[in-house]
Amino acid sequence: MAKIARFDAIGGPENIKIFDEQPVSPGPGEVLVDVKAAGLNRAEYMFLQGEYLLQPELPSRIGLEGAGIIVEVGPDVADYKVGDEVSITPNMSAVEYGVVGEIALVPVAALVAKPRSISFEHAAAIWMAYPTAYGGLVEVGGMEPSAGQVVVITAASSSVGLPAIQIAKAHGATVIATSRGTSKKDAIMAAGADHLIATEEEDFAARVMEITDGRGFDIAFDPIAGPFLETLCNGAAVEATIVEYGFLSTSDTVFPLYPTIGKGLRVCGFHLLFNLFQHSDRTARALADINAGLENGTYVPVIDRVFPLADAAAAYQHMASNQQVGKIIVAGD
Amino acid sequence: MAKIARFDAIGGPENIKIFDEQPVSPGPGEVLVDVKAAGLNRAEYMFLQGEYLLQPELPSRIGLEGAGIIVEVGPDVADYKVGDEVSITPNMSAVEYGVVGEIALVPVAALVAKPRSISFEHAAAIWMAYPTAYGGLVEVGGMEPSAGQVVVITAASSSVGLPAIQIAKAHGATVIATSRGTSKKDAIMAAGADHLIATEEEDFAARVMEITDGRGFDIAFDPIAGPFLETLCNGAAVEATIVEYGFLSTSDTVFPLYPTIGKGLRVCGFHLLFNLFQHSDRTARALADINAGLENGTYVPVIDRVFPLADAAAAYQHMASNQQVGKIIVAGD
Repeated sequence: MAKIARFDAIGGPENIKIFDEQPVSPGPGEVLVDVKAAGLNRAEYMFLQGEYLLQPELPSRIGLEGAGIIVEVGPDVADYKVGDEVSITPNMSAVEYGVVGEIALVPVAALVAKPRSISFEHAAAIWMAYPTAYGGLVEVGGMEPSAGQVVVITAASSSVGLPAIQIAKAHGATVIATSRGTSKKDAIMAAGADHLIATEEEDFAARVMEITDGRGFDIAFDPIAGPFLETLCNGAAVEATIVEYGFLSTSDTVFPLYPTIGKGLRVCGFHLLFNLFQHSDRTARALADINAGLENGTYVPVIDRVFPLADAAAAYQHMASNQQVGKIIVAGD
Repeated sequence: MAKIARFDAIGGPENIKIFDEQPVSPGPGEVLVDVKAAGLNRAEYMFLQGEYLLQPELPSRIGLEGAGIIVEVGPDVADYKVGDEVSITPNMSAVEYGVVGEIALVPVAALVAKPRSISFEHAAAIWMAYPTAYGGLVEVGGMEPSAGQVVVITAASSSVGLPAIQIAKAHGATVIATSRGTSKKDAIMAAGADHLIATEEEDFAARVMEITDGRGFDIAFDPIAGPFLETLCNGAAVEATIVEYGFLSTSDTVFPLYPTIGKGLRVCGFHLLFNLFQHSDRTARALADINAGLENGTYVPVIDRVFPLADAAAAYQHMASNQQVGKIIVAGD
């Protein structure tokens, strides 16, 4: 028997409970993983609330990212064997799979080999955040090495925001981070940001124009949307790109048509599967960049806190509180 | 003395009157053109109404596109001489310049040599529409030759829509045109469209999915925006690009965040100056493509009607009626 987190109703984290279940053997193209750490993401919090792109089948497993050791392989699996240490990436359906628990079935397509030098906690904090940040900034946003671009990273203390700062700095960009207040300033500056704008205390566009001598930013990477999209447009340079990768704002997003056409802006949605993982060339570039950064110490996952599996519901409550800086981890056992 | 159209108040075309004025000599970088034909654009109709990106200084000239013969050159003008037949492109400020009238001052940057084989009416109908369509579809939209892309052209009977159809067909795309009804179907199909969707009579997304076997379109080129942007998103393929180049809808444009992120879409604003003319490489590609198409007969400007200068106000009234198919021309004299 193994302990597995499932939610049995749409709603808040209180619906997440720990069940004792008989492990299921992996089918073709799957492996069974002894989960050592699961990394939490906002996407599954929305999935839990019934507000994600896909609707759960109750009682549903939860969690799309983690790290662990393979304990059983499916009939046709050739590239992995029992005992392999792996990272589990979100390249799988939230409806069919979930990793918060002692064990998890995982499709081979979602596995990445875990270097032994990296802890399971770090290995569970890489493969949603870094590919999202890399894909959004580089492949969709058009960030180029040494191009001297000014990049705005909003919600900068989040589990994607901090890696985005590291990646933008590694590509030679000037990074303007935003946060609602200044309480997380130390962590944001430590990740490499050049400037922090506290959006609830300062005029975002005015500060960006001041920092850029009136030119505006080149790329913004934003999970907020809502009315903030218009604020972003006001700080954009001509032909700037704004990459939207989340739905944090609960207000309608009025499309700022005048600045978008008036400055020839691009507003791009970023979807990790469609814009990155479904393209082998882009995926290869992302993996090469991320692995190199992890190896040379430029990219260091920031872990907020590790919760025991029994406290999985509390871990998602903590995410909802927005007090975290970096990645929230739930231990596998 | 020369007859010049000016509007002396913000509002409708009734404010456009014909004045007798002493021609002003061209300054440095300017020429004086004997205007033979002015091509009307929606942009200056919005300028007239005070709804454009720039505000007029009253009484203001009007018109950003035309063709004629140079009658005087400014002190430092080397590339053009008296007697040259030229097209006047919108590469100038609507506040400082305007071409509806018998004569017009024009900055050299806005001139393009007119092949003698092309009529003045056609020459006045090319340089707003074709660069907008080319720049929006190719440079911003990512249309590639022979890529088999499915391209949606909305407001297809407009002075930009018809050239967009011709350019998309010349690049090997499948063209789905839209119009509110079917009254302009013949002209739209004659321009080369493969399909016409009458948006007030048919379900746009359902028809696009039917035509594309459920895949959706690759590129949409749209001057409408407003609630129609969401309709467009519903017909988009994964990673499709929607290029917005106008403000025809008077309703707010709610940004369809879920399909944009859910399908990894790009929504781009297109500005002729910022996205095309300010880049010499893109401008050179556009001119080469357009001149080749005009020369080999693939690109044929569609003229709706030619108004005498005395009826300039009526010409803009006609534009407001949305009854036209193609370009409305006001003769210079």
